[in-house]
Amino acid sequence: MTAPTSLSDGVTRPRVLDCTIRDGGLINGWRFDDGFVRRVMHALASAGVDYMEVGYRSSAKYVSPAGCGAWRFCHEDDLRRIAADLEPELKLSVMADVGRVELADICPRRQSAVQMIRVACYAAQVEQGIELAERCVDLGYEATINVMAISSVGPPELAKALELLGRSSVPTVYLVDSYGALYPEQVRALIGQYASSLPGKQLGVHIHNNLQLALANTIEAASGGATLLDATIYGMGRGAGNCPLELLLAFLGGDVRPILDVIQDVFLPLQRELRWGYHAPHMITGALNQHPRRGLEAMAQESPPRLRQLYEELRASGAPSGLTR
Amino acid sequence: MTAPTSLSDGVTRPRVLDCTIRDGGLINGWRFDDGFVRRVMHALASAGVDYMEVGYRSSAKYVSPAGCGAWRFCHEDDLRRIAADLEPELKLSVMADVGRVELADICPRRQSAVQMIRVACYAAQVEQGIELAERCVDLGYEATINVMAISSVGPPELAKALELLGRSSVPTVYLVDSYGALYPEQVRALIGQYASSLPGKQLGVHIHNNLQLALANTIEAASGGATLLDATIYGMGRGAGNCPLELLLAFLGGDVRPILDVIQDVFLPLQRELRWGYHAPHMITGALNQHPRRGLEAMAQESPPRLRQLYEELRASGAPSGLTR
Repeated sequence: MTAPTSLSDGVTRPRVLDCTIRDGGLINGWRFDDGFVRRVMHALASAGVDYMEVGYRSSAKYVSPAGCGAWRFCHEDDLRRIAADLEPELKLSVMADVGRVELADICPRRQSAVQMIRVACYAAQVEQGIELAERCVDLGYEATINVMAISSVGPPELAKALELLGRSSVPTVYLVDSYGALYPEQVRALIGQYASSLPGKQLGVHIHNNLQLALANTIEAASGGATLLDATIYGMGRGAGNCPLELLLAFLGGDVRPILDVIQDVFLPLQRELRWGYHAPHMITGALNQHPRRGLEAMAQESPPRLRQLYEELRASGAPSGLTR
Repeated sequence: MTAPTSLSDGVTRPRVLDCTIRDGGLINGWRFDDGFVRRVMHALASAGVDYMEVGYRSSAKYVSPAGCGAWRFCHEDDLRRIAADLEPELKLSVMADVGRVELADICPRRQSAVQMIRVACYAAQVEQGIELAERCVDLGYEATINVMAISSVGPPELAKALELLGRSSVPTVYLVDSYGALYPEQVRALIGQYASSLPGKQLGVHIHNNLQLALANTIEAASGGATLLDATIYGMGRGAGNCPLELLLAFLGGDVRPILDVIQDVFLPLQRELRWGYHAPHMITGALNQHPRRGLEAMAQESPPRLRQLYEELRASGAPSGLTR
């Protein structure tokens, strides 16, 4: 792929979605104060990023607010407070997990501060995901379906999910490597399958960094047709984190300077408190195509387990039925 | 590329060269004690790694021994002490920098503990590199030429270097991304050019990790025909470091467990003293295709410069004539 020389080039350029607050919030319970969120928002707008995902839209019926900051729920009041000084070029999105939100929690687009709702579901839940995302479309939002943990999905299940998605009116479908387990050759094959199964739809990509492949796999997906690319500032995210926004912008020829400023002033101090990035336990779960859970537990322990023991335990538990190489 | 399921598969499988001691030594002046080197050696042998690069072969005439450990010079006495309990499957290599060694420093292979000498030079020095490497071949060694800083080499200079290399008797030529500045699409193009310019020669690859692309670019080069793949344990190396061996072995289907052991027991404690890995100043030099020097200086300062200032200073200094995208 030949990268565009500027993020403002042409109409077919990939668009960048920053989900630092939403995905990074998994580490700190979304306890970001308004100043932090505004600082991120202004940096993203200055850098020419297209979307900022500010959190999850959740229902208190399903998600306990205990210990959680505002961005776990993204009530419209909270969004409006932040969006008051939003630059118009930057759109806001929220993520809605199937099973953790009700339609009653989602107002019509014209009453909302956000333009896009991204519906996250597993492949087995794709019918519920489509139902929710189509209602979001009806309410006037841009909507996506983010099919999580794609490396754990077997070929027949994936084919069925893509068939249902292809018949839906959901305009955008994401390839999400929740386990950070994919190699570029696998991303290439998967995005090719998405593209051929979902003609006319926009494709997105969201990659975790367990194998230090988040940028490479994002580039690979873009070269296979994905035009909505997720990243987070300095890769902030649970465990190994995400595709670092500064690297993606550098690749795309965007302006990294506002992101460097916010890394230096905000994210380097934050990383001294909250650990994310490449660590051996996260590498192990990624290499074995496993849920990040055990790596996160290992990192949280006072006396971490032997890495060899963690590796053997996870290997013995068996890879998911999904992907073979 | 479809990875082999085991490092012991077939004859065309890629071979792995670990250069932790040689490249990692750039951080600590090669002051690794014998126990450390032996521990690494046994881990590599257990993991099925093919080559271990134990340091530089240098001449005291050109390199001051002040502050340097034994592996800056790799005298045969030092090598023999280590190699005494070497597993026969693991071969040793040393690197020789053009201009920092004399032929008198290199004994015939049958008197040496090492099997391979890798000659490092810039594109402009390729004739001297070839001369040295051909003498190493004559002395009975496996020999390579490692053309450094390839991202700074302009197309005519590269074509000329490859032509000279093609006419030489040096059996192996490396693509070396010293600046960690290449994107996979560029590695693909370069390794293709190497392959077509150097028929019958083995190709190798050595990638720095400034843009978190060391593994991806190593895989890319392997899928383009490189069969000698460099890595270091936990990515240890100056600045952003190298392709992490544990990730490369996981990709190739090798046994990562001995490497996990040595990471936990040796490299995690070491990383608390010596910093390497992804840091914003290294990202900046990589993204701007610049020598790592200024990033290393920035990391060493008590009061680091503003990242924006570093970025603007390096951008103003101009990219090398080499690579355009």
